[in-house]
Amino acid sequence: MQSIVDFILEVDKLKGVTRKVKPLGLERYENSAEHSWQLALLASSLQSFAAVPVKIDHVIRMLLIHDIGEIDTGDTMVFVEGGWAERKRDELAAVTRIFGLLRDGQGEVFLELWKEFEQGETPESRFANAVDRAMPVLLNLNNHGQSWRENHISHARVVARVAPQIQAGCPALWEYLEVRLTAARDHGWFATDG
Amino acid sequence: MQSIVDFILEVDKLKGVTRKVKPLGLERYENSAEHSWQLALLASSLQSFAAVPVKIDHVIRMLLIHDIGEIDTGDTMVFVEGGWAERKRDELAAVTRIFGLLRDGQGEVFLELWKEFEQGETPESRFANAVDRAMPVLLNLNNHGQSWRENHISHARVVARVAPQIQAGCPALWEYLEVRLTAARDHGWFATDG
Repeated sequence: MQSIVDFILEVDKLKGVTRKVKPLGLERYENSAEHSWQLALLASSLQSFAAVPVKIDHVIRMLLIHDIGEIDTGDTMVFVEGGWAERKRDELAAVTRIFGLLRDGQGEVFLELWKEFEQGETPESRFANAVDRAMPVLLNLNNHGQSWRENHISHARVVARVAPQIQAGCPALWEYLEVRLTAARDHGWFATDG
Repeated sequence: MQSIVDFILEVDKLKGVTRKVKPLGLERYENSAEHSWQLALLASSLQSFAAVPVKIDHVIRMLLIHDIGEIDTGDTMVFVEGGWAERKRDELAAVTRIFGLLRDGQGEVFLELWKEFEQGETPESRFANAVDRAMPVLLNLNNHGQSWRENHISHARVVARVAPQIQAGCPALWEYLEVRLTAARDHGWFATDG
């Protein structure tokens, strides 16, 4: 029991890891814990639009733990260039440490889920990655491009970084987003050269 | 697709519903979205300690949506006396509205999960309720009784409000908490008459 308590208090720190996008109508930045919660709900709701049939409970479990490595590394915006191999190495060390707090094989189950998400080679992990890429786009589309503008990101860069994964995991969602991203560009919500 | 987007942007508001406990080491109050995420992880980790075997994915789904009614009503501390029937009626109206944004039976599935949690009559909902009652206790035990002190809550009142549900859903967790609640009383982390 103590090992479980140690684990749940350790992952409490994910509430303090801030991302670049803001929840709608709030002045503060989103944190990775509430983001993980929202992804689980988006995946549930989108299940029938997955590229291929997925085991949705497996997707949900993956999404709930996919960002836990950020407790040691912090969140890195998907548009940052370079350094990804080092960050992923550090995140792996972090989740190995944190899931290692658990006993009786539970930590190993979480670690395998985390690796599956990172590798993105199963239908479930492809769908989970699509949902993860799409959610900040949905928030930005309803927030006047807040994090794109604040971080000087161009339309082309957003499309290049999110389209392949969203298309691979949830093509209907990409169709929905693509026209709205074009409209957002016309609204001037992107940097023109970032 | 638009109905799913409307839903996920509506539930975004749960990130703005604040609770009475603070995440460890942070100055702000916890919100109900990140709380729901943490409960899903606690339930996963505690599965083998459930009073009776539970379908854990069903528990997780229930916990992810159990607080969504608070978008319209706000969070009410479990120690508030009276007015519960009215609050539950208002929460039911809220989740009926919010889940009603979804199409193709998805909203009905969420609504049934929400009602199952509220009724607390299945093994899964009893376990989910135990986890929901226990998490703020765990945070307070590691935060010098922060929300108990701020809200003038006595040891007896905490025990009366959380013991029955935690014992019913996860007896080993209650055993763990009971001794620590006694120690917390000895530390002076409770009001003596609240």
